[in-house]
Amino acid sequence: MAARVLVLGGDGYLGWPTALAFSAQGHRVAVVDNFAKRRWELELGVRPLFPISTLHERVRAWRELTGREIELHVADLTDYDAVVSIMEGFRPDAVIHYGEQPSAPYSMIDVRRATYTQHNNVIGTLHVLFAIRDHSPETHLVKLGTMGEYGTPNIDIEEGYLTVTHNGRTDTLPYPKLAGSMYHLSKVHDSNNLHFASRIWGLRVTDLNQGVVYGVETDETALDPRLATSFHYDEVFGTALNRFCVQAAIEHPLTVYGKGNQTRGFLNIRDTVQCVDLAVNNPAAPGEFRVFNQFTEQFSVLELAERVREAAAHLGWSVTVEHSENPRKEAEDHYYNAKHSKLLELGLQPHPLSEELIDTMLGKIAANRDRIDPDTLVQGVRWVPRRNPEPGPQPA
Amino acid sequence: MAARVLVLGGDGYLGWPTALAFSAQGHRVAVVDNFAKRRWELELGVRPLFPISTLHERVRAWRELTGREIELHVADLTDYDAVVSIMEGFRPDAVIHYGEQPSAPYSMIDVRRATYTQHNNVIGTLHVLFAIRDHSPETHLVKLGTMGEYGTPNIDIEEGYLTVTHNGRTDTLPYPKLAGSMYHLSKVHDSNNLHFASRIWGLRVTDLNQGVVYGVETDETALDPRLATSFHYDEVFGTALNRFCVQAAIEHPLTVYGKGNQTRGFLNIRDTVQCVDLAVNNPAAPGEFRVFNQFTEQFSVLELAERVREAAAHLGWSVTVEHSENPRKEAEDHYYNAKHSKLLELGLQPHPLSEELIDTMLGKIAANRDRIDPDTLVQGVRWVPRRNPEPGPQPA
Repeated sequence: MAARVLVLGGDGYLGWPTALAFSAQGHRVAVVDNFAKRRWELELGVRPLFPISTLHERVRAWRELTGREIELHVADLTDYDAVVSIMEGFRPDAVIHYGEQPSAPYSMIDVRRATYTQHNNVIGTLHVLFAIRDHSPETHLVKLGTMGEYGTPNIDIEEGYLTVTHNGRTDTLPYPKLAGSMYHLSKVHDSNNLHFASRIWGLRVTDLNQGVVYGVETDETALDPRLATSFHYDEVFGTALNRFCVQAAIEHPLTVYGKGNQTRGFLNIRDTVQCVDLAVNNPAAPGEFRVFNQFTEQFSVLELAERVREAAAHLGWSVTVEHSENPRKEAEDHYYNAKHSKLLELGLQPHPLSEELIDTMLGKIAANRDRIDPDTLVQGVRWVPRRNPEPGPQPA
Repeated sequence: MAARVLVLGGDGYLGWPTALAFSAQGHRVAVVDNFAKRRWELELGVRPLFPISTLHERVRAWRELTGREIELHVADLTDYDAVVSIMEGFRPDAVIHYGEQPSAPYSMIDVRRATYTQHNNVIGTLHVLFAIRDHSPETHLVKLGTMGEYGTPNIDIEEGYLTVTHNGRTDTLPYPKLAGSMYHLSKVHDSNNLHFASRIWGLRVTDLNQGVVYGVETDETALDPRLATSFHYDEVFGTALNRFCVQAAIEHPLTVYGKGNQTRGFLNIRDTVQCVDLAVNNPAAPGEFRVFNQFTEQFSVLELAERVREAAAHLGWSVTVEHSENPRKEAEDHYYNAKHSKLLELGLQPHPLSEELIDTMLGKIAANRDRIDPDTLVQGVRWVPRRNPEPGPQPA
């Protein structure tokens, strides 16, 4: 049955492919974006690897190619009236919420970007929760969180909750969080707000704690260059594997932060779309706050770099792995075992990382080699600013 | 040795007595306030029981009576430049941070008050953290949190951390939180941000998870009517025992929400001042995020009402206890055992709740009986709004 699906952040790396995937299945899809990401790109002088059409052009191209209509709303989630107006007008069965500032380094640039990130993400999400509560209470909210909310505890990471026996009594409580940046903290704040909205107001909520996404395309974005998704390789918006592939394509050393033993969950962008689809098609019950850990494989950063180096070597490219000073403050040797069975139980068919996939990525990236700006590979955002003897004023 | 103590929210119920107590001991004290609380009072048509002078008058009265000087800064913590300017100019040894929207019911009135509370509290505290990091990194931040961050888990509540053994491995992690309102959530967000600032930047931070405070005065505020503190009894800003005493003074039924078995930690306002003093005089180490549960006794709401009813009966007042529909959504029968030993270990000498203390409160309140506005005792803020068949627009 066709559902009404509202994608917040529908202009982004994941939001756009998600909107296309639901539209391709015949669902009625609307996207919302305020183009903030395009403004941050200008601010930092970075751009996606592939040329990205305007959202209006993308929607037109999709209509032209498939005859399918995607509704487009230009709106800012921190504007409550706008959120209400879209919610009342569209009355979605599911809201898929990617509409947040998604970069840890961006949030750590300075006080202004830190507070912007927390304000934008937390207040925007509160507006979505209130608008659902008061104007569309049956709507299922599918919210993108991050595996980075958990940090690297010395125990197994469970999916959202931990059953604790303490002094002879037992309870199942929200899994303790140890977020690693101002951005990751904003997602922890969101999770706490979402849980409250579910517990107290009875909303249907799924929180997807997503791992690090890689990949250049999905079936739908590959149909036409005008449908390409916003693939970043710069320090601020690029993610680990994507960045390594771009570095390899210009035979730049693969920049591993510190030892590179930092282990994280990863997934293919096609699996992001698949996971969100599974969440929407198996909605949370009223009052249920459901948390899924959304990734398919764990790798250390160094393993990833080695995988890319090997694939590049088979193509005859000469690429080295370089350990640079870690600009982040994070454990470089740590236990990591994160559970991720709930989406598999719903039917997720993972696309594991293969040399073939890396080859495909390297090929598509190499075809756009002339658009790579190596100056943006390292931008020097540090988790702990270098302290002068007498600290000067904070850059704004 | 005289310390430099900066009190944020220095015009409030607790901030002002705290500032006086430190000043009385010969410390150098500065207070910051933006008078937001006085604006919320006007907004809701409520006022404190005792007439409150302007902050300028209070500071002058204190100087006149004791010869001691309190520096006064009118500033908003959401204005980063203002926070930096105060931090650079005063270079405090300790910042005592009460400068937040402190009412759960206020935060639950509507979407605007919910987002205002989270924005104001979270962004203000982030500004304090960045200003300390970049302009006064040795400063010890003593931040007021709330016991309400924990909610009512079915296991013992520890002081900030929980040691968990899970699948054969052990770690000590932040205690899981189950906040009960948009306000309580804002304090959970703060705690997560504070912990990060301590872990990543090495700041000295003490988070005081305070119980429900009662009491009309401290030694210093009792010196002169111009030094009185802002004592509320209305539904939105009044706390349980204070409200019951005011209801008793006009022989109004004591309004217990639901069964009244809700159990919480409570403390005398004199003990708030004492606890903060202990935290300041025993500062956290660099990089230490210390959490103290700040209360002295646990009571159920019904027990408190009974204590007030009995004390009033001895004065010959005819007071009943009335169970009203609970406007909040909270467990009314639950396990509750919250640890609170760390402040006792530092030397806290509690003032337990006694009939004598209730008598004193009732006497002071009765002397101002003509200022009590019974219309503000119940204002009808509900945790879950009554749903119309077709919900109308959200009041702004």
